[in-house]
Amino acid sequence: MIPSRVIEGKRDGASIPAMELEAFLQDFLHDRIPDYQMAAFLMAVYFQGLDGAEADVLVRCMLASGSTLDLSHLPGPRIDKHSTGGVGDKVSLALAPLAAELGLYVPMMSGRGLGHTTGTLDKLEAFPGFRTRLELADFRRVLEDVGCAMIGQTSEIAPLDRRLYALRDVTGTVPVIPLIAASIMSKKLAEDLDGLVLDVKVGGGAFVPEEERALLLAETMVAMGAARGLPTVALLTAMDRPLGRAVGNALETAEAVACLKGEGPADLEALVLLEAAEMVAEGFPDVGPAEARKRAEAALRSGRALERLERLVSAQGGDSSIIHEPRRFLTAPEQEAVTAEAAGTVLAVDPRPLGLAVVDLGGGRRRMDDDIHLGVGFELAVAPGDRVEVGDPLGVVHALDLDGVSRGGSVLRRAVSVGDGQPALRPLVSHRVSSEGIVEVGGISGL
Amino acid sequence: MIPSRVIEGKRDGASIPAMELEAFLQDFLHDRIPDYQMAAFLMAVYFQGLDGAEADVLVRCMLASGSTLDLSHLPGPRIDKHSTGGVGDKVSLALAPLAAELGLYVPMMSGRGLGHTTGTLDKLEAFPGFRTRLELADFRRVLEDVGCAMIGQTSEIAPLDRRLYALRDVTGTVPVIPLIAASIMSKKLAEDLDGLVLDVKVGGGAFVPEEERALLLAETMVAMGAARGLPTVALLTAMDRPLGRAVGNALETAEAVACLKGEGPADLEALVLLEAAEMVAEGFPDVGPAEARKRAEAALRSGRALERLERLVSAQGGDSSIIHEPRRFLTAPEQEAVTAEAAGTVLAVDPRPLGLAVVDLGGGRRRMDDDIHLGVGFELAVAPGDRVEVGDPLGVVHALDLDGVSRGGSVLRRAVSVGDGQPALRPLVSHRVSSEGIVEVGGISGL
Repeated sequence: MIPSRVIEGKRDGASIPAMELEAFLQDFLHDRIPDYQMAAFLMAVYFQGLDGAEADVLVRCMLASGSTLDLSHLPGPRIDKHSTGGVGDKVSLALAPLAAELGLYVPMMSGRGLGHTTGTLDKLEAFPGFRTRLELADFRRVLEDVGCAMIGQTSEIAPLDRRLYALRDVTGTVPVIPLIAASIMSKKLAEDLDGLVLDVKVGGGAFVPEEERALLLAETMVAMGAARGLPTVALLTAMDRPLGRAVGNALETAEAVACLKGEGPADLEALVLLEAAEMVAEGFPDVGPAEARKRAEAALRSGRALERLERLVSAQGGDSSIIHEPRRFLTAPEQEAVTAEAAGTVLAVDPRPLGLAVVDLGGGRRRMDDDIHLGVGFELAVAPGDRVEVGDPLGVVHALDLDGVSRGGSVLRRAVSVGDGQPALRPLVSHRVSSEGIVEVGGISGL
Repeated sequence: MIPSRVIEGKRDGASIPAMELEAFLQDFLHDRIPDYQMAAFLMAVYFQGLDGAEADVLVRCMLASGSTLDLSHLPGPRIDKHSTGGVGDKVSLALAPLAAELGLYVPMMSGRGLGHTTGTLDKLEAFPGFRTRLELADFRRVLEDVGCAMIGQTSEIAPLDRRLYALRDVTGTVPVIPLIAASIMSKKLAEDLDGLVLDVKVGGGAFVPEEERALLLAETMVAMGAARGLPTVALLTAMDRPLGRAVGNALETAEAVACLKGEGPADLEALVLLEAAEMVAEGFPDVGPAEARKRAEAALRSGRALERLERLVSAQGGDSSIIHEPRRFLTAPEQEAVTAEAAGTVLAVDPRPLGLAVVDLGGGRRRMDDDIHLGVGFELAVAPGDRVEVGDPLGVVHALDLDGVSRGGSVLRRAVSVGDGQPALRPLVSHRVSSEGIVEVGGISGL
């Protein structure tokens, strides 16, 4: 294997033979290939892509570069869920305990906020005392006891992915479908799962905004799962507006709690139920989709999923009493309502500027070691399709100071478009991608 | 300037603002930007190119990164020539003394053999004792005394180009038109010239084989010269077959000497005369093309250009007596004739395998510090269009041992296609590119 030949081959659109690519990746991992050759290769991949066989080699090498869990002793199916990330996406917080309540084991390893999106780990830390770093033994114990456990990536999992990601981050090679897919799937494959549900966001607030590319990402990940024996289903879900009404870490945590109380926004609840039903269907293939859906609704309505969340928070060292006193969730010191300056229909709520504003207000990271304030963000009072009059509230900005309130307020005003006509919205779920192919869903467009 | 933004901008096809690109290049030169970011940028340039303004910034930064000559004291015009390199291209060796004889000063800095091509420096060293490394003071003295001097690149010239080239060489980013162009032009602009003639090879034995890309390379270099005030003319010349009959260092040197004796192959002589006339026309704008051509022919026929070569060789420490006893040029120990196995017309002589075979036989470098044997190579007995009968000689292989003779022989046999019909050949010179644009020439196709 001659590294420059591998780079040239990819540059020219060739498919790199498995043994060559594997040697290239191994040599990089073991510092026998310098970063500059990998950087050139990654940029060539940006332009030429990876085919299925190449992507499989990449996933396999990432996986083999680190440890994998062994959860075979658990008495029920292990099913996880992963979202590609969006604005206001707090599904995991409600979904993991709900799935556990449904008899599944959910060994969820999540990330911090990235770019314009918040992260599950940060949202978990809105429960006072919640520990997202557990020894693997403790992680397994929580999982056995509660049915779900939620921690950060450990450094033993897929170190090749971590090294590649660090390089991609500074070389303009983050938005590359097969690299995104391999990065996600290598970590999920390390969790020793029986099934995986992927929530692939599409629209302006997603990392891959275009439907065609989002579908390709979904297909790529589903194929990677299938190739490694992991049944994987991906849902393409709307990120042309924020999910739910809360944007910002603690605000989102509170909304996820509300969802498990049956008091969450309709779109959030719908997505949580859909994904829970997909997880049940994967974990219990004998249970049909209708029954899976029924069970998920029942577990949510009964309050049992909420109890499961309480158990999870306690098991991971957090103060679960806050679940019943959500006003105790950390808030930012300054709050101000923003009102409509014109009457009309809300035509759009642009998610990305709101997500970026959370970072600007101190609620997201520019560098991985930034401290963040969990309380900042937005509570939206409107969603696309709502009618507003002059002076009606559009939402509340939560900020650290008056200057932040002012900046956040002007972002919110610009993010909400009011006018005549009807909004053109993506359906909440537009496509379902499984190893059987792509199915257009489009049945939940009202939400 | 944020390096990852510059990379992303180029990746997305944007034009990088001059100040940003300059800062990016300067920071790289001064080790403030790591090689991996530059490698990703170079690969993005492979796919997205550089526009004229960006290319000009690159040339300017390369030039400014090192020293430039000051040759303004010379009493005549300074004109140089550069070839993009091909198989059997020994034009410079004959052209420099011829141009000097025509009243021009030729401060030629050349390179070693690269890939499948031999280099002028190696060919010069076929003159026993010839020194291609001179102190700049000695270089200037030879130039003043002889009218031409031929040395290797000094390390003071364009260090940014050298660093970029080293990185390109191992990251699959060598064949990028604006990078090739900037690399060549930055070095030529450092020579303090009044004019430059470029020989851009096109065809299978060229580094840029395709006519369209070769034309783009020519246009890019001509524009770079114009942008920096250096009148530049480029000729697109045929490299779909070797130039002349000799391929290999010392064999080519001997053929260049023969050319100055009026005994060289017709295509080589034609090209030497054409380029000499272009150089004269640049150096003495009052002299028309016809008169320039006449003077070049006269200088060649009179033997005065040959005398000039003798003076050059002596001035640079070489044994010039070899010019009159060319049998003393270093030869390889084993020589064997290869003969035609079928009768017919020579339809093609494929240059690239012959060039690669010279490397294989020990006459070219795989790494810059390889030792080479100057005597190995091929003396071709045929050119496309020739009629051969079974048993007629196709050429002679010069090799270090019998195994080499055998390998070289089979390469030669495969490189020469014999069959029915007529060869489809490129004209020796197909296009002339100047700041006035591209002119199709096509008048010398018989050669």
